[in-house]
Amino acid sequence: MSYELLSTIRGPRDLKQLPREKLPTLAQEIRNAICDQVSKTGGHLAPNLGVVELTIAMHYVFDFSQDRLLFDVGHQCYPHKLLTGRLGLLGKLRQRDGMAGFPEPRESDFDLFSVGHAGTAISTAVGMARGDQLVGEYTPDHGRRVVSLIGDSSIVNGVAMEGLNNAGTLKRQFLVVLNDNGMSINEPQGAVAGYFDRFRASQTYKEFKTTAHRVLKHLPGGETLEEIYHRMGEMTKAALAREHMFEHFGLLCVGPVDGHDLPSLIDMFEEIKDLDRPMLLHVKTIKGKGFDFSTGDPTTFHSPKPFKIDGCRVEVQKGGRAFTSAYADLMTEVMTKDEKVTAVTAGMPDGTGVVKLMQQFPDRAFDVGIAESHAVDMCAGMAKSGMKPFATIYSTFLQRAFDQVFQEVALQKLPVRFCLDRAGLVGGDGAVHHGFADINFLRVFPGMVLTAAMDEPTLAAALEFMRTHDVGPSALRYPRDSVPTPIQPDTPAFELGKANRLAEGSDLAILAYGFPANHALAAREELAEQGYSVAVYDARFAKPVDIDLVGKLIKAGVPILTVEDHSVVGGFGTCVLEACHEVGLDTRGVHRLGLPDDWIYQGGRGEQLAEAGIDATGIARRVRELLDEKAGTPTGNSKATVGAVRR
Amino acid sequence: MSYELLSTIRGPRDLKQLPREKLPTLAQEIRNAICDQVSKTGGHLAPNLGVVELTIAMHYVFDFSQDRLLFDVGHQCYPHKLLTGRLGLLGKLRQRDGMAGFPEPRESDFDLFSVGHAGTAISTAVGMARGDQLVGEYTPDHGRRVVSLIGDSSIVNGVAMEGLNNAGTLKRQFLVVLNDNGMSINEPQGAVAGYFDRFRASQTYKEFKTTAHRVLKHLPGGETLEEIYHRMGEMTKAALAREHMFEHFGLLCVGPVDGHDLPSLIDMFEEIKDLDRPMLLHVKTIKGKGFDFSTGDPTTFHSPKPFKIDGCRVEVQKGGRAFTSAYADLMTEVMTKDEKVTAVTAGMPDGTGVVKLMQQFPDRAFDVGIAESHAVDMCAGMAKSGMKPFATIYSTFLQRAFDQVFQEVALQKLPVRFCLDRAGLVGGDGAVHHGFADINFLRVFPGMVLTAAMDEPTLAAALEFMRTHDVGPSALRYPRDSVPTPIQPDTPAFELGKANRLAEGSDLAILAYGFPANHALAAREELAEQGYSVAVYDARFAKPVDIDLVGKLIKAGVPILTVEDHSVVGGFGTCVLEACHEVGLDTRGVHRLGLPDDWIYQGGRGEQLAEAGIDATGIARRVRELLDEKAGTPTGNSKATVGAVRR
Repeated sequence: MSYELLSTIRGPRDLKQLPREKLPTLAQEIRNAICDQVSKTGGHLAPNLGVVELTIAMHYVFDFSQDRLLFDVGHQCYPHKLLTGRLGLLGKLRQRDGMAGFPEPRESDFDLFSVGHAGTAISTAVGMARGDQLVGEYTPDHGRRVVSLIGDSSIVNGVAMEGLNNAGTLKRQFLVVLNDNGMSINEPQGAVAGYFDRFRASQTYKEFKTTAHRVLKHLPGGETLEEIYHRMGEMTKAALAREHMFEHFGLLCVGPVDGHDLPSLIDMFEEIKDLDRPMLLHVKTIKGKGFDFSTGDPTTFHSPKPFKIDGCRVEVQKGGRAFTSAYADLMTEVMTKDEKVTAVTAGMPDGTGVVKLMQQFPDRAFDVGIAESHAVDMCAGMAKSGMKPFATIYSTFLQRAFDQVFQEVALQKLPVRFCLDRAGLVGGDGAVHHGFADINFLRVFPGMVLTAAMDEPTLAAALEFMRTHDVGPSALRYPRDSVPTPIQPDTPAFELGKANRLAEGSDLAILAYGFPANHALAAREELAEQGYSVAVYDARFAKPVDIDLVGKLIKAGVPILTVEDHSVVGGFGTCVLEACHEVGLDTRGVHRLGLPDDWIYQGGRGEQLAEAGIDATGIARRVRELLDEKAGTPTGNSKATVGAVRR
Repeated sequence: MSYELLSTIRGPRDLKQLPREKLPTLAQEIRNAICDQVSKTGGHLAPNLGVVELTIAMHYVFDFSQDRLLFDVGHQCYPHKLLTGRLGLLGKLRQRDGMAGFPEPRESDFDLFSVGHAGTAISTAVGMARGDQLVGEYTPDHGRRVVSLIGDSSIVNGVAMEGLNNAGTLKRQFLVVLNDNGMSINEPQGAVAGYFDRFRASQTYKEFKTTAHRVLKHLPGGETLEEIYHRMGEMTKAALAREHMFEHFGLLCVGPVDGHDLPSLIDMFEEIKDLDRPMLLHVKTIKGKGFDFSTGDPTTFHSPKPFKIDGCRVEVQKGGRAFTSAYADLMTEVMTKDEKVTAVTAGMPDGTGVVKLMQQFPDRAFDVGIAESHAVDMCAGMAKSGMKPFATIYSTFLQRAFDQVFQEVALQKLPVRFCLDRAGLVGGDGAVHHGFADINFLRVFPGMVLTAAMDEPTLAAALEFMRTHDVGPSALRYPRDSVPTPIQPDTPAFELGKANRLAEGSDLAILAYGFPANHALAAREELAEQGYSVAVYDARFAKPVDIDLVGKLIKAGVPILTVEDHSVVGGFGTCVLEACHEVGLDTRGVHRLGLPDDWIYQGGRGEQLAEAGIDATGIARRVRELLDEKAGTPTGNSKATVGAVRR
């Protein structure tokens, strides 16, 4: 496809040169470009389609080479990227050295923060508003304006509400644009979602024409507000929102306005851009706007795999059987067998597979919306009541509930089960989404049991272990990957702190934690052809480590290579080192392989595993190095190794 | 003092036997008992004095042997403890084997969660409400009611608001009691605090007599609400709150009511206790109620040290110069010298010393309220604007912003400086407040620099190091302790990754991280008398570790003992192990001493250090063991040791 108008936009300056009447054409080209690319490579679709006019209007009015634009989550940044000179990168969307799927300061100065976790934009915006003022780059008459763009499901996340509470104390221009499409990735959750529904339905411009003065009286600010009122345009006055919930946070609330009416959006931004007080502009948009298939099914087209449009049929590519699907099926069995089991997701019912459980067990499966902290606390409460909650949360998102895992779960010794999907490298979503830290941050809690699954049978066995492990918390990790053909379809039951031997060998033993055991087995085959005899163990537990096994290997003089899809800092390898150290074992024969102490950006998951040197090739290479080194020098050299990683 | 009535209350059953007219006397005895005890041992005073009537009323009406009572933060649980049979423990308030200063399930089944971090009660209450229902212990006509008690400054914390949002979707009895005293520990912060001020001032019962029906119409629920209305008592109808901000969260809001009017409180609870929908009762209380000195200065008497009442003069015991005071003084110099430096606290201006900076630099020092996640994000924004923010947060509370340190700070490589007060064991506050995990959870982030101070000169040097370290984030830890007489008043400047030798010795080298270096020096003296020659180093950096020094010691055959006031799991000792492992050093001569992988409960900080074996005596004992062992067997045995700890 050609993008006649879009291809002339090298940046917002070019956009500002366009006459208003050409903007709808530009909007259509942006939609086409995004849809065409996502259909080829997958990526976020519906969220981007919903904000095309909004993004054009913001760039048309503000000057984000000076002004600040902060995206929340960033699922909706593609139009912004295309308007800031990155059409050329689009062809490599979410690929190595291509265009990141989220805002990415390494790509452009127009992207201020690389994000992907929800609820943060208002808080960082408050920081920049204060910071710019302190460095002298903002005065009421002049300088950097601050705008943050946030969705209706993200704005009720805890940190977002903390940010609003502080934003309401600002005494300067500060605009929050609420992109209200009545959707999260799935249906929005929580009571506030109902409020938004009623608010959206009940409010229209007309109602307010006479109430603008009255609204202003409700707000703190006194005379200043009167002044502001006089400086407001008629449109803004008319759209002042009566009894908007965020008024209580000290924000002047305007809207809801139509997020696809470009001329009105532009006029509205023109009218409010220089009002020197915190404001919220409530914008109604349609998620997936522009194509029937995406407005009709915005959840499927939130972030689809590649798809084909064939007339009016749209077919999304199917992948292999994902761990997520296996989890959903296995948990169906667990919840059927044990009526005390509950499953909880925080805004990711599809992503975690919990949606399937919600359909089958509507009383025992919960989506609490984007509220990971609350999700963990709710699980703690349920465990206290005697239920067996399984908190199913991506590894990277459990970071958002670290303190709840500490206080409400671990300190109480409550048997909350954490199921960490997307543990390890995640591919296209990149650095904001890797599950690189869960072993590290969970193992510091006394009584925490850490386990991992390498395939579907071990996933089943691990879930069964957790179901019956009721003396304290436990966590299970599994990757964003397809389940492999299992090496042991009848895998032995999980026994606390016991590893499982998958293959024999005498020169070296690989202790792999969870999924990388599959790569280790492949490496073993390659090595066998080269004359090396390598044993492979599925370590199964990082806390407690199978110290008996490790001790036996060390005492038998067998070098050990630990492998994990997790940072080498404080990961499984370190668990082994500490366990050895505690009982006085010599760790010179223990070697660690894992993710480097560095950021890994977007690309294929396979590429990333290779980069980190934890795929089959990388493992085999490391084993050869160790064994050749050992053959050369009698005392093996203990060393943590990470693959060569692009900086 | 004798407590004639209180001493007859062995539990809520006894309370319920009392005629209403005796309750004021009981309230007075509770106030006297708490004030008397806190004046002797220190503890939380003003928060407890404010909720005496409220707690009596709740226990008088509800049956918390069956119903659920969840405290938020728990600063206000002493009256509850006294009413649930723990008068006998009060004499050992916050002491080892005495009465914990926070709710503590190990003490009583009436305490459901041990808490101390804010904002969690509503979320755990939602979990128990759902859990009790699932296990069949709640039906609309019968069974466990759920009540949570939360303050006006905690309810705006992120997780609390996430909890409210979910609570609003419950279809059963669920009561949130908002203890609105218009105070946090200090002044409440944020725009919502202003809303509460206006709300409190503008609302009275009388206003609402005619508007109850109208309020109900605003809320979702349709006919059910009409039914509820008919079942409501007249008092509740009259007190329905118009336009209460938490209505938007789906809660029926009642109040504000007078939290010291016992008869009305009891009547109100009687009227609402069985309404089967989520409600919020807004209660106005006076922090410190009962004594002029505590209502007059509720911040000082929030959690005072022991004090003397001498007529109308009240004198609070003074301690030594705390690290917190040293920090405030040193930061005054830093902020005077460098106008780009800002300081941020999350609701602990006194606790962190930032209050002093707020007085001197009102434009550059900020209290954002109990909102650690927001505080860190605001700092990230400021750093992005080119400022040099120092986020001053207790170690235990930074856990609440783990994901923000990840995404908004570390991933962006922004030079936010974290100043972690209360790092290590904290004494009377116990397990909910120890800073036992910060080294572990921060070191997993690429580019994070971790440092520690042992005394005032090193605190100054570390702050100066951080001020100029602008390529990424850094964190400094210091304890809840007094600054010791420095061994090196002219301590050398901090140099990234370089330790500092404090004392020479040839038999063994102690590498202490921060404050424990003082204990190591004392141990060294004791050991010298016994003929052992021990070197002591202030390690200064946990990331990066001074691997040159460690390598030299190992190569010279000098055993190393790492000492830290932090968990041995993933702490400084592990940093040393990993660093050695990475460069192939033999770690058999490295030994680790730190906190056990177990919970340590309230007691004196000195007792706790002794328990963990990291005080001077413990360190000396461990060194002797190591050296005697070494003398006995030629190859030293590498072992992590933790003191014998009560389970």
